Amino acid sequence: MRIVVATTVVQPGEQDDATLAAQVRRGNTLRIGLLEAGYDLIASLPADMFLPERIAQLQPDLIIIDAESDARDVLEHIVITSRDERRPIVLFTEDATTSSMEAAMAAGVSAYIVAGLQAERIKPVLGVALARFRQEQILLDELTDTRHKLAERKVVERAKGVLIAHQQLTEDQAYQQLRSMAMNKKLKLSDIAQRILDVEDLLG
Amino acid sequence: MRIVVATTVVQPGEQDDATLAAQVRRGNTLRIGLLEAGYDLIASLPADMFLPERIAQLQPDLIIIDAESDARDVLEHIVITSRDERRPIVLFTEDATTSSMEAAMAAGVSAYIVAGLQAERIKPVLGVALARFRQEQILLDELTDTRHKLAERKVVERAKGVLIAHQQLTEDQAYQQLRSMAMNKKLKLSDIAQRILDVEDLLG
Repeated sequence: MRIVVATTVVQPGEQDDATLAAQVRRGNTLRIGLLEAGYDLIASLPADMFLPERIAQLQPDLIIIDAESDARDVLEHIVITSRDERRPIVLFTEDATTSSMEAAMAAGVSAYIVAGLQAERIKPVLGVALARFRQEQILLDELTDTRHKLAERKVVERAKGVLIAHQQLTEDQAYQQLRSMAMNKKLKLSDIAQRILDVEDLLG
Repeated sequence: MRIVVATTVVQPGEQDDATLAAQVRRGNTLRIGLLEAGYDLIASLPADMFLPERIAQLQPDLIIIDAESDARDVLEHIVITSRDERRPIVLFTEDATTSSMEAAMAAGVSAYIVAGLQAERIKPVLGVALARFRQEQILLDELTDTRHKLAERKVVERAKGVLIAHQQLTEDQAYQQLRSMAMNKKLKLSDIAQRILDVEDLLG
């Protein structure tokens, strides 16, 4: 299990020594927990605008975000990261505001842990996050598949309508024509239907 | 926020004093955390076969399961509870096995917390669980809606097929007949289509 840790960016001079020390402690706790649980920590990165690109290069199996406060700021970079390829994301934070929690859920965060960064808890937290991610993936795949089937049916029906209007065919004849075009071109019925609609759009 | 706590059932004589004392401590921690966070704990129930019925009577806004070990045993009763009406479920346990985690996710558990039962963490944990539940609900509603639309289209197309075969109609005529039947009966197109298919099934 290859893991990337992303940490909120600290501007120089923005934090006092105590806050900085606390942040170093959090980072150490996280690293110890990961090592003890046998995970492969491949990189620690700042959670900035370059994060999506680096994640795409490293292709980790899981991303951990350590954002003591202002979890929402980090999430915008994470949303971009997840757009092309979903990954389990675990967020450790002290931010317990409802709006941050809701933003995290909408961004696809698999585990949002408030004030729970203890080395011995990291393994079960990651375990739950992976189980959650897989379950959500099943649901999302099913949604994508169902949407796709519905869209295909709509396209085929619209294309039939075009053929009926332009060539004075019955619905049955229009369907038979679509089918034979699909067979001749070795395309799916919905693909040939989409081509007909594309041409119709071009011709106005 | 009305909350029900469900606890694993202990057979008399099955546990030693230390285990029993630990369980009482867990129960107290949970109760203190709920009270301090201002939640309304309306009932503490054993997580047995009567749980689904009691939940249905009490209609809580959220269910907390306290299952120190063997979380899977409790989940079967929870699955039944959620069948008719989904509710946010929070599971506190010491059971960190992958199979229990996966069973919990499949059962619709909104938060699975291993070794994290501390009074001060209960409020953020419940907050995350609620945010998760709402997000999942959006996804599930969308899936239900998309499935429904697809099923409706299939029913209408099958009913057209029946009319075409039995009454020697063209597809267009069959569609027009469905439409006028639906208008006459003040029913949706898919409902009239379903009635035609029901009759077709009856007649073999």
